[in-house]
Amino acid sequence: MAAPIDFYFDFSSPYAYLASHLIEDMAAKHGRSVVWRPMLLGAALKVTGSPPIVKVPLKGDYAGHDLKRKARLHEIPFAMPPVFPIASHAPSRGFYWLKRHDGDLAVAYAKAAWKAFFVDGTDISDKDAAADIFATVDQALFALEKPLSREAFRESIDDEVVKGFLREATDRAIERGVFGAPFIIVDGEPFWGVESLPMVDTWLERGGW
Amino acid sequence: MAAPIDFYFDFSSPYAYLASHLIEDMAAKHGRSVVWRPMLLGAALKVTGSPPIVKVPLKGDYAGHDLKRKARLHEIPFAMPPVFPIASHAPSRGFYWLKRHDGDLAVAYAKAAWKAFFVDGTDISDKDAAADIFATVDQALFALEKPLSREAFRESIDDEVVKGFLREATDRAIERGVFGAPFIIVDGEPFWGVESLPMVDTWLERGGW
Repeated sequence: MAAPIDFYFDFSSPYAYLASHLIEDMAAKHGRSVVWRPMLLGAALKVTGSPPIVKVPLKGDYAGHDLKRKARLHEIPFAMPPVFPIASHAPSRGFYWLKRHDGDLAVAYAKAAWKAFFVDGTDISDKDAAADIFATVDQALFALEKPLSREAFRESIDDEVVKGFLREATDRAIERGVFGAPFIIVDGEPFWGVESLPMVDTWLERGGW
Repeated sequence: MAAPIDFYFDFSSPYAYLASHLIEDMAAKHGRSVVWRPMLLGAALKVTGSPPIVKVPLKGDYAGHDLKRKARLHEIPFAMPPVFPIASHAPSRGFYWLKRHDGDLAVAYAKAAWKAFFVDGTDISDKDAAADIFATVDQALFALEKPLSREAFRESIDDEVVKGFLREATDRAIERGVFGAPFIIVDGEPFWGVESLPMVDTWLERGGW
């Protein structure tokens, strides 16, 4: 079995959200799985000295238009959230806490959190909102000894050990050269941006060039 | 005949250079021509507050790798020039001076200048080098009353009227929202980056979506 694809993202990134709707089918086509790796993009932007794209003159307006256009093209439900950008600590920490219990459940949570943010407009930076979303995930689909509670999820967000998981995931991503979202690493080869997905597809097809 | 496609670029942009090898065939496929519009990207970067990509930590290294990878994928001759980035006033002014005589000759010059810079490593910011490149362009292919001299080209670079052409082209590009290179505008619809070319292709195919 070939190595999985690393999918780096920040829950606040709409381009990463769009990529999340496309990457799994593409990976599966090539017999690859996807490892979801939420991180704090702000830490990477500090290294590059870049503000969030929406705050950049000209580019911010372009991105707002381009996101809606790409969502329509790929038929992905999408609306810019009323509160944006957000600090994504809450869903990211919850994700890493869940991942210790069940990786697939963590991914199911990530999808639910993104739907809440980019479709329903919920501010997922709010710790209680992030936990409420977890309570809507159907845990019967996953191989857990017993269901995880909303309360345990909510507590994980303030847990020092869990905070460390997210810090470490972010540091490790930056060490690997991640400077934007989405960022995909395939067999050590880095690809930035949802626009790079067709190139990732070709890379997987040919095994590089 | 459908409206031509606007192709904005800075002679110093390697991503725009790669796009120049792909855009004309794509446009022709849809019965469109391409209007080449050199500009001073530095003025746009001043508006967005961005440094040139090669000077950005992490992103600069990525771009260096990505450019070589994309050049190999599309089989485009490419080597990062020893002097980079450059101020592109000389070839850009020469371009706009030529354009007043013959638009196709100006494009032929642009291609020659880019080959000199991104294949042969010539520093085309040098006014004499920019003029020497013009002297290598075969003018017999174009509908000129009489050939234009290397000396006239060289003088155009310091001509106040020609300087004004470039300033105006740059101002007008920024007014239209151009913040990076390559930047393509199709029937008013903006597309940034060589990675957007497949989306431009689909846009032309469908007439938007």
